[in-house]
Amino acid sequence: MNGQPTLYTSLSPSLLHLYDLNNAVVVIIDVFRATSTIAAALHNGARCVVPVDTVPKAIAAAEALGGIAAGERDGKIADGLQHGNSPLEYSPSFINDQTLVLTTTNGTRLLHMALDNGADTIITGSFPNLSAVCDFLVRQNKNVVLGCSGWKDRYNLEDTLFAGAVIHRIKEYFTIHCDSSLSAELLYASMKDDLLAHAPRFTHYHRLVERFGLIEDIRFCLTPDVAPVLPLYKEGWLIRG
Amino acid sequence: MNGQPTLYTSLSPSLLHLYDLNNAVVVIIDVFRATSTIAAALHNGARCVVPVDTVPKAIAAAEALGGIAAGERDGKIADGLQHGNSPLEYSPSFINDQTLVLTTTNGTRLLHMALDNGADTIITGSFPNLSAVCDFLVRQNKNVVLGCSGWKDRYNLEDTLFAGAVIHRIKEYFTIHCDSSLSAELLYASMKDDLLAHAPRFTHYHRLVERFGLIEDIRFCLTPDVAPVLPLYKEGWLIRG
Repeated sequence: MNGQPTLYTSLSPSLLHLYDLNNAVVVIIDVFRATSTIAAALHNGARCVVPVDTVPKAIAAAEALGGIAAGERDGKIADGLQHGNSPLEYSPSFINDQTLVLTTTNGTRLLHMALDNGADTIITGSFPNLSAVCDFLVRQNKNVVLGCSGWKDRYNLEDTLFAGAVIHRIKEYFTIHCDSSLSAELLYASMKDDLLAHAPRFTHYHRLVERFGLIEDIRFCLTPDVAPVLPLYKEGWLIRG
Repeated sequence: MNGQPTLYTSLSPSLLHLYDLNNAVVVIIDVFRATSTIAAALHNGARCVVPVDTVPKAIAAAEALGGIAAGERDGKIADGLQHGNSPLEYSPSFINDQTLVLTTTNGTRLLHMALDNGADTIITGSFPNLSAVCDFLVRQNKNVVLGCSGWKDRYNLEDTLFAGAVIHRIKEYFTIHCDSSLSAELLYASMKDDLLAHAPRFTHYHRLVERFGLIEDIRFCLTPDVAPVLPLYKEGWLIRG
C-alpha cells in the first residue's frame, strides 16, 4: 500500500476543487457523449480534437485551423453549427486527417476547470477507450483524479460507472481512501454484466433517447474498447497519446 | 406519477445550490454523527437543540440560554468545549429538560446553507430516527431534498446510505428523476442487511474508530429507530416535531 500513488473520484465539476491536481493525472469523463466522441474521432483518424468552451470560439478556431466545428448544447447540435456531439458522426471517411473543434455542455468545460486547477496531465476517458485509459494510468504511476462531468454540475450515473470500471480494473496499483471511488466501484460491479440494460433508469438516457432517439449513441458509448485510443491533452489539443 | 411531489438527493453541501428548496422539505443528513446526536438528545428529553456554526457562538448561546455547549471539530470535542458530538453522551439523566447548543464540522453548516437557500421546512435525519423522517415526508406531501452533509464538502457513503434508506421506503409517494437518488437507493439495497459489516470500508469509519475508538457511536448511528423522534427546525431551534 505505502508508496503507491493515490486515486480519487470527483463526482461533479462542483467538487473538483476539493482534490489536489498538482502532479496528478486527471481523467475527464463525459460518457454521454463528449469523451466517447473524442475517442471515436481520434480512433477514426482525426489529426486532433480541439476542446473549446463556446460556439463562437469553435467556429473561429475551425476557420483558423481549417477544421470542422462541432458541438452540442442541451443534448442537440448547437445553434450555428452543422455537426454535433455524436460519436457516430465521425466515421473514418469523414474525419480522417481532419481537425475537430468541439464544444459541449459538460465535458469540455470540466477539462478547462482541470487546467485552471493545475492538473499535470489531462486525458479523456469513456467506455470506448477504457483499456487504453487503464493502461496509461498504471504506466504513469502518478496520483489520479477521475473527474466526472455530470450534467450541469449535477451528479450522473454513467460517468460514475466509468470511474467505477477504471477502479475495478486498476485498484491494486493505487491507495484509495475515497467514498466516491468505493461507491463508483460498487455501482459498476452491480451493473457491469449488462450496462445497456440498466441505462433506461439514467436521467441522461431519457434526455438522449426519448427526446432525440439516440439509442445507437448510447449503445456505442457503453461498449468497452470500440475506439482503443488515448486522447492526451497537449497545449490546447487532444492528440493520440 | 403526475402530480406527485418530487424528491432529489444532494450528495454534498457543494451541490445543494443546484436544487430548488423553495416550498420543499429539506432533510439534513449527517449520520456520523451530528444528526444522530440531535435525534438522541431530543429523544432523551432535551428541550431543544440549537445548531450554531462556531464554537464561540455555542459558548455564548449556551450561557445566554442556560444550556449545554457542545461540538466537534475534525471528529473530536472542539477546543474550548466540555461536550462533544457523540450520541451516547446525551443520556436521559444528563440531557432531560436541557437545551443543547451544538456546533459540528458538517451537519450544522449544511443546515444554515439550507436556510440561506430558502428552504421551506427543515428537519434532520439519521438511522436512529429513520421511520419518523419517512412518516413526516409522506404526510407533508411536498417536494423533498435529501441533503447529505458529507465531510468538508466531499461525498461520503454513510449519508448517501441514509438517503437511500429513505428513498427505499417512500419512493412510491414521489416522482424521482435523479441519478443521485437512484445511486443512493442501489447502494443502500446492497448493504441494508448489515450496514455495520460494511462500515469499515467507509473513510469516516477510519477517522472515528481507528483514531478515536468510537465503535459504539458507529453502532448507534447505523441502527434504525433507536431514537424515534422528528427534529424540526423552528426559528433557530430544533424541537420535537
